[in-house]
Amino acid sequence: MPVIKGPQVFPRAEFLRRLNAVKLEMGRLEIDALIVGSSADITYLTGYTAKSGYVPQALVISSNDEEPTFILRRQDAPAAIHQTFMDRDKVIGYSEALIGNPDKDGYDAVVDFLNERDGANKRGVGVQLGYLSVRSAEKFKTRLPSARIVDCTHSVAWIRMIKSDLEISMMRDAAAIADAGVQKAFEVIRPGVREADVMADVAAQLARGTNGKAGTDLASMYFCSSPRTGTCHIRWSEDVIRDGSQINLEIAGVRHGYVSAIMRTFSVGAPSDRLRRIHDAEVLGLEAALSTVKPGATCSDVANAFYRTIEKSGFQKDSRCGYAIGIDWSEPTASLKDGDMTKLKPNMTFHLMLGNWIEEDFGYVLSETFRVTEAGCEVLTKSPRQLCVI
Amino acid sequence: MPVIKGPQVFPRAEFLRRLNAVKLEMGRLEIDALIVGSSADITYLTGYTAKSGYVPQALVISSNDEEPTFILRRQDAPAAIHQTFMDRDKVIGYSEALIGNPDKDGYDAVVDFLNERDGANKRGVGVQLGYLSVRSAEKFKTRLPSARIVDCTHSVAWIRMIKSDLEISMMRDAAAIADAGVQKAFEVIRPGVREADVMADVAAQLARGTNGKAGTDLASMYFCSSPRTGTCHIRWSEDVIRDGSQINLEIAGVRHGYVSAIMRTFSVGAPSDRLRRIHDAEVLGLEAALSTVKPGATCSDVANAFYRTIEKSGFQKDSRCGYAIGIDWSEPTASLKDGDMTKLKPNMTFHLMLGNWIEEDFGYVLSETFRVTEAGCEVLTKSPRQLCVI
Repeated sequence: MPVIKGPQVFPRAEFLRRLNAVKLEMGRLEIDALIVGSSADITYLTGYTAKSGYVPQALVISSNDEEPTFILRRQDAPAAIHQTFMDRDKVIGYSEALIGNPDKDGYDAVVDFLNERDGANKRGVGVQLGYLSVRSAEKFKTRLPSARIVDCTHSVAWIRMIKSDLEISMMRDAAAIADAGVQKAFEVIRPGVREADVMADVAAQLARGTNGKAGTDLASMYFCSSPRTGTCHIRWSEDVIRDGSQINLEIAGVRHGYVSAIMRTFSVGAPSDRLRRIHDAEVLGLEAALSTVKPGATCSDVANAFYRTIEKSGFQKDSRCGYAIGIDWSEPTASLKDGDMTKLKPNMTFHLMLGNWIEEDFGYVLSETFRVTEAGCEVLTKSPRQLCVI
Repeated sequence: MPVIKGPQVFPRAEFLRRLNAVKLEMGRLEIDALIVGSSADITYLTGYTAKSGYVPQALVISSNDEEPTFILRRQDAPAAIHQTFMDRDKVIGYSEALIGNPDKDGYDAVVDFLNERDGANKRGVGVQLGYLSVRSAEKFKTRLPSARIVDCTHSVAWIRMIKSDLEISMMRDAAAIADAGVQKAFEVIRPGVREADVMADVAAQLARGTNGKAGTDLASMYFCSSPRTGTCHIRWSEDVIRDGSQINLEIAGVRHGYVSAIMRTFSVGAPSDRLRRIHDAEVLGLEAALSTVKPGATCSDVANAFYRTIEKSGFQKDSRCGYAIGIDWSEPTASLKDGDMTKLKPNMTFHLMLGNWIEEDFGYVLSETFRVTEAGCEVLTKSPRQLCVI
């Protein structure tokens, strides 16, 4: 039996608006077909959030078709029919014979589609070369010999950087879930408790969600405790929490693909002077950065407001101060860093990520997810900006 | 202050043994340096499990150096020093200026290292071209103009396919965690409960682990309930569980990178005849497949034992019956499918994945993680092979 359409998270008009923006860009690039392989871009343009992107799949956008065509592994096609806004004949499942096959893969099905049904061979075809392996890229070039291949790696990412109000609402809900996760961590971090048990409770909270809105996925979680506070991407250790330990927590809430992230630092027992000093400096830096946010200011302006403020307290941060955030966490567009002259516009969203790994064995974290408003900024994450002392 | 070495999960001798196997293969391929970018391969060769692979990083193995050199983002270097078996001078952090930079990235640091310190420019250099974008691959070719570049995409994956007893022990622990997750699901799946709340409890169990051994990460989880049982990669929905619902669950336990996966089907209320019939057929197929497993049999033999058995009950399965499993879940080597003539050897491990998505709105799942023994097979996952009726 055919699978039914699932509840639609966004109205059809929202997807058509997004697709029209992409088609405008396609016109500018003089391409007639755009092959979108990025899972986050596919979520943006269709509503699909199932996790099948570990094998090749692609959305084909044609300038003269209202709806895109989604070509993916046959066993994932029902999920695409169920989740996306498109008509069911816009979902094409390719044969299982292309899985685990050294000679052919799902991109061959995409090229077949272009050759047989889309007539793209004589036109401009946009491809996300930055996400393709050498071999897959070669496939597009050799099997579409008359097409003009244009690299469009980040074309959709730049369009989705400015969210609609509906997307912002989703990110607000995700931020509330992230806040609930921080609160849960504050409740369960205690001396003698295993790190894994803390993260079990935090993960459960992130799945349960808050305010009646469940988390729809679990994003990456990091729990970097003493002596690992100089690291940033360790999930958790097999250790138990100890008196005097510091913990750097990075988590995120997820709603229908949209991610809002947050970082907070915990101290089990009285914080050291050094920890207290960097916390105070970073909170001032955070406030300075946020007060710089407004349409027309640049990403560089925001980062420099932070850098200049913490310098006054004798600190510096080597890494960027954040990045565009949205579907699947970070977006490959603008960074909050010195020299990034991207101008802020209303409804751009960023993870102002002030993690500062100062020495090999000492770091501190603090972050917020914010959106640019018409006049300034709205911080979506609402957890107190405290050093969380247990 | 320097970060201290963390507890080592495997002895140094184990890593040297793995590296020696890789160096033997490098000799066969007549290459003097191998650039390993795959996160799973890096875990295998160093013990590193921090999640920094979303930006370029690479392990450089030189035929005449005992320890490899790990080149990664500077802020992740302390985690590498902490987690890996190598001396600290074998970890090189590259500048934050290479992050979010449209002109250069971490691979430039890798090529710099090869040019400046390794003298690889005039020799054979193995690169995992299958994991590199066109642009990154070009970088290796143009910036190492005199080197002979050899594609080694899956060279390490084929070596790590045969586990040591130490690795098998880790996978046994991971399997016990997966079993605990299935048991937890059986306890909490009830009519009226939100799917998100079930998965909150399951995720928590997978993090807590079992038998005093915590989960060290959360792998992907899938909860595909009516009317989505014909799909396979939906995390969970916003629905509540209903009387009469069927649920297809796929989860995994993780220990220090090693993954053991399991699938079970749940029925809330009496199962339909169709569901009961496919369950019975698949259990027979599973047993037939497992009884075929022994050194010298092929992957194709195992798959065909399953296919031939379920055919007797009038069922068929379009997709492969599984794949090699280990670090980071699936390995890109052998598949349990018709025509894969890979010969089984002791301590190969597979996810015998019998998910069968028969119609758009109806599927069934059942799987085990097993290892090949000297004489047959050991099933690592131990959950009852039942249709879990609530």
